[in-house]
This record gives sequence, C-alpha cells and structure tokens, in this order.
Amino acid sequence: MEFFTIINIGGTIAFAISGTLAGIRKQLDIFGLLVIAFVTSIGGGTIRDILIGHLPVRWLLDSSVILLITCTFILTILLKNHIDKLDKTLTFFDSLGLGFFTLRGIQEGLAIDLDISACIILGTITACFGGVIRDTLLNEIPTLFKKEIYATACIVGGLCYFLLKQLALPNELIDLSTILIIVGIRLLAVKKNISLPRVG
Amino acid sequence: MEFFTIINIGGTIAFAISGTLAGIRKQLDIFGLLVIAFVTSIGGGTIRDILIGHLPVRWLLDSSVILLITCTFILTILLKNHIDKLDKTLTFFDSLGLGFFTLRGIQEGLAIDLDISACIILGTITACFGGVIRDTLLNEIPTLFKKEIYATACIVGGLCYFLLKQLALPNELIDLSTILIIVGIRLLAVKKNISLPRVG
Amino acid sequence: MEFFTIINIGGTIAFAISGTLAGIRKQLDIFGLLVIAFVTSIGGGTIRDILIGHLPVRWLLDSSVILLITCTFILTILLKNHIDKLDKTLTFFDSLGLGFFTLRGIQEGLAIDLDISACIILGTITACFGGVIRDTLLNEIPTLFKKEIYATACIVGGLCYFLLKQLALPNELIDLSTILIIVGIRLLAVKKNISLPRVG
Repeated sequence: MEFFTIINIGGTIAFAISGTLAGIRKQLDIFGLLVIAFVTSIGGGTIRDILIGHLPVRWLLDSSVILLITCTFILTILLKNHIDKLDKTLTFFDSLGLGFFTLRGIQEGLAIDLDISACIILGTITACFGGVIRDTLLNEIPTLFKKEIYATACIVGGLCYFLLKQLALPNELIDLSTILIIVGIRLLAVKKNISLPRVG
Repeated sequence: MEFFTIINIGGTIAFAISGTLAGIRKQLDIFGLLVIAFVTSIGGGTIRDILIGHLPVRWLLDSSVILLITCTFILTILLKNHIDKLDKTLTFFDSLGLGFFTLRGIQEGLAIDLDISACIILGTITACFGGVIRDTLLNEIPTLFKKEIYATACIVGGLCYFLLKQLALPNELIDLSTILIIVGIRLLAVKKNISLPRVG
Repeated sequence: MEFFTIINIGGTIAFAISGTLAGIRKQLDIFGLLVIAFVTSIGGGTIRDILIGHLPVRWLLDSSVILLITCTFILTILLKNHIDKLDKTLTFFDSLGLGFFTLRGIQEGLAIDLDISACIILGTITACFGGVIRDTLLNEIPTLFKKEIYATACIVGGLCYFLLKQLALPNELIDLSTILIIVGIRLLAVKKNISLPRVG
C-alpha cells in the first residue's frame, strides 16, 4: 500500500470517528450516528464531485470506502470510552486527512483545467464541508465558521501548492510539502489555541 | 393505472401532506409551506438523482409530479382541520411511500451496476432524505436521527431484497415482498412505539 | 458592458453584501463570513446548475465571479459602518438581482425544453435559494419561509414572462418587463411591509 493511500484511509477514519463522537454528544440513535459518520467522512468529496460533475459520486462505486466507514463506526461505538485517551492521535489523523483531502480537491480541479482560485476552493470544500454538513444536520452553526483555523490551513496550503509549482519542483515533493504545510498550520493552531478574528 | 403507479402517487401525496403539516407547526407562510411540501416529497429522489448523475433530476421533466404536489398542498391547507382524523390513513400511505421509494432507489442503483451496499444506501436516501431536508430547513435535528425506526425499515427491506434475489424468485414477488417487509416493520414500530437505542 | 451584465454584477454584489452582513450579526469569523458571502451570492445558481445537470457549475469556470465576490466581501468588511446608510441602495440592487436571477433561471429551463412550471421553479430557486442556504447554515429557519414577499415576486414575474410570451412581444421587451415586475413587487412589499398570510 503506498503512502497516499495510507493517509487517505487515515483521514477517512479520523473524519468518521469525529462524526460519530459529535453525534453521540447530540444523543442520536444508532442509525443517526451512522449517517453522521458517513456524512462527515465523505460529505466534502461528495459536494466536490457534484460541483465538477464527476457522477456517480466516487464512493457509490467503491464499496471499500463504505466498508471502511461502517467498520470505523462500529469500533468507535464499542470503544468510545477509550477514544478520549486517543485525543492526540485523532487530531493528528484529522490534520493529515485535512491535508490529503485538500490536495485531492486541488488535483481534481486541475484535471478539468480549472484555474487556481477554483482549485483552491475545491480543495477547501473537499477537506472541510463534510464537517459543515455534519454541524448543519446536528443543528449547529458550523464550527468551521466560528472557532477554528481549519479552512485557513487549507487555503494557505493551496496557495503554497501553486507557488511551489511555479518553482518547477518534482510533483511528489510539491504534494508532500502541501500536506505538511496544512498539517503544520492545523496542529500549531490546535496547540496554541489560535482562532481567526471576528468582525463586529 | 398499474399497482406500482398507485403506490408511488400515494407515497408522494403522504410525504407532501407530512411536509405541509410540519411547516404549519413552525408557522411558515404560504410559500414556505409549499417549498416544504415539495422538498419533503421529492427531496430524497432528488439527492439520489444527483448522486448517480441522472440529470436533469426527474421531477423537472415531469410536470405531473409538480401538479400532484401542488394540488395535495392546496387540499391539505383547506382541509387541515380534518386531516388529524386521517392520522392512520396517513401513516399507512407514508409507510407505503417508504417501501416504494426504497425499492425505486435500489432499482436505480442496480440499473447502473452499483453493488449491494451502495444500492441499499441509495434506497434509504430516496425514502428518507426528503424528511431530513425538511427537518434541517425547519431548524431541527432530523427526527430520523433521534426517534424512529424509519431508515432501519428501509435497510432491513433492502437486505431482504437481495436475499430474495439469491433465491431466484420472480421479480414481481421480490418487489412486493420488499415493500411489504418495509411497511410491516414501519407500522409495527409505530404501533408498538419502538425506537432504536442510543449510545452514551 | 451591456445592460444585463451590469444588472447581473449588481445582483451578485448585493447578495454578497447581504450574506456578509448576516454573518457578522452571527459573529462568524473571517473565513465563515467569506463562505456565507459566496453561498448567498452563488448558492441559488449552483443548485439550479446541479438540478439541470449543467456541470461543472458555472462559477467554477469563471474566476471573474470569484474575484467579484471576494472584492465585495473585503470592501463590505472595511466599510461595514457605512453600509447601513446604503440601506436603500442595497435593497434596490437586491431586488434587481432577484429579477435578473429569476429571468436567468427561466431561460436556463427553456434552453433544455422544460415546461412552464419547471421553468418558474428553476427561476425561483436561482433567485431565492442562496438565501435559503445562508439562513440554514446560520442555523435559522429561512426568512424566505416566514416573513417576506420574496419568492412570490419571482413566481408572479415568472407567470408574467410566459403570459407576455403568448403575446409574441419582442424578447428584449419580455425580459425587461419580467425584471421590472419582480423589482416592482419586491420594492412595494418592502415599502408597505407586506407579508404572506400564515396558516394555522
């Protein structure tokens, strides 16, 4: 299994766990939790696929993703008392997922010749909008809009991606750097508890 | 008019009524009620059509659906004081709609060669996600996620569909059995007031 | 620059400003505000493009829209203390946007041979559903459903469009009349503080 596949799986798992835990806090029943786990995990990629017209959306054609999320969901339910102790591991995978999914979105945009701003928007949507749907379904204003340097990491990472591309570096190096920048900004923000300013 | 067309119409009507009544409880104005009636009725099928890329979505091409929902809406408004007495009739049609729409979703999935898990997900989305959009627009956590054996009936029905298919029974019998299983589970759950367990 | 391009730009700007201001009232951070500005501005057209299968959605292919919204957003943030004074100008452009976007939606429907009811629905969605997504993300029941003659203006304008078409008037005149009718109804409703009746 190659490097990027592992990160992809790690990100999917982290997002599924985060969705399940958010649902438990809202006292959803088992089915509600399962839906939230799916939506958090594949929601961003689904919106991206719809916006660019890559239909049927990918996860419908790939039952390994469905299986992965379902298993993660079951394990999260069974082990939920132990997951809090995994907090740091989770944040780490969540950040990796953020980086990886941003990169995926950008690459999907490039594959259909979108320009830079559209690619960065697609990357950010891929990485962040699963969480936006999760929060909206749970009847909350998306955390993303209020408290965290999350999307900002994606946007900065995306800008760096195109900056590095100008330098004609090898693709693998650009990809890796982009992910590392996003993960770095995100982990730093969590550690230092940094938020974006409000207006008003 | 054949059997399945009647069920389809019955389900559409039941869903449109349920949307209108939910909107009245939230004090929407006339236009808001109309939108909620539409969304509850065709929301699930719309999401399914988008996910599989069957665009334009079907109801845009079929003004008889638009007419049916509009008429149902007007009648619901005019007769709303009498509809509570129809409670059992409504639950019955709503359950039939649930069964029929699940079957439709599964068949759409099979038509583009999706595998079993994706087909069952499509069936459940077709049957249940109109209600999810309704509740989200009305600023509530979807009932589906908290209180009812609703989606569970769809999932169990979907599993039975593929089980029966293994037995090489005639298609009509499989279709009918699937609908009956879903209707049966749903009506039983309503009658016995059964819910899914919560985690937490 | 021709007449309709100017109205289109005016409408996009007015919708972006209205989204930003709504977000400020909800204390979103900078990124949240930017997303709400985008969603309010292009949400309706995005849903329309998805429903009719015109993918990738248009704004992904047109970075001038992205740039326009981003600049409007930055100016709104910088000048927010002065924008309240612009209240009437804003309402005017917002109404123009409403008229223009309704017309756009109707024309997109006609371009793929949809019938009258579907075209009017598409027009209304194009004009109004950016605001619906905005309110849903901000965790409120869409204003559209509760307080305002907004969608009604679009529906009446749409009906007039097809009525005028029967009279075989020149296209430019029909287009202009439709926009004027919608703007007129909307401005009158704002001035007289007219709402739709509730049922209940």
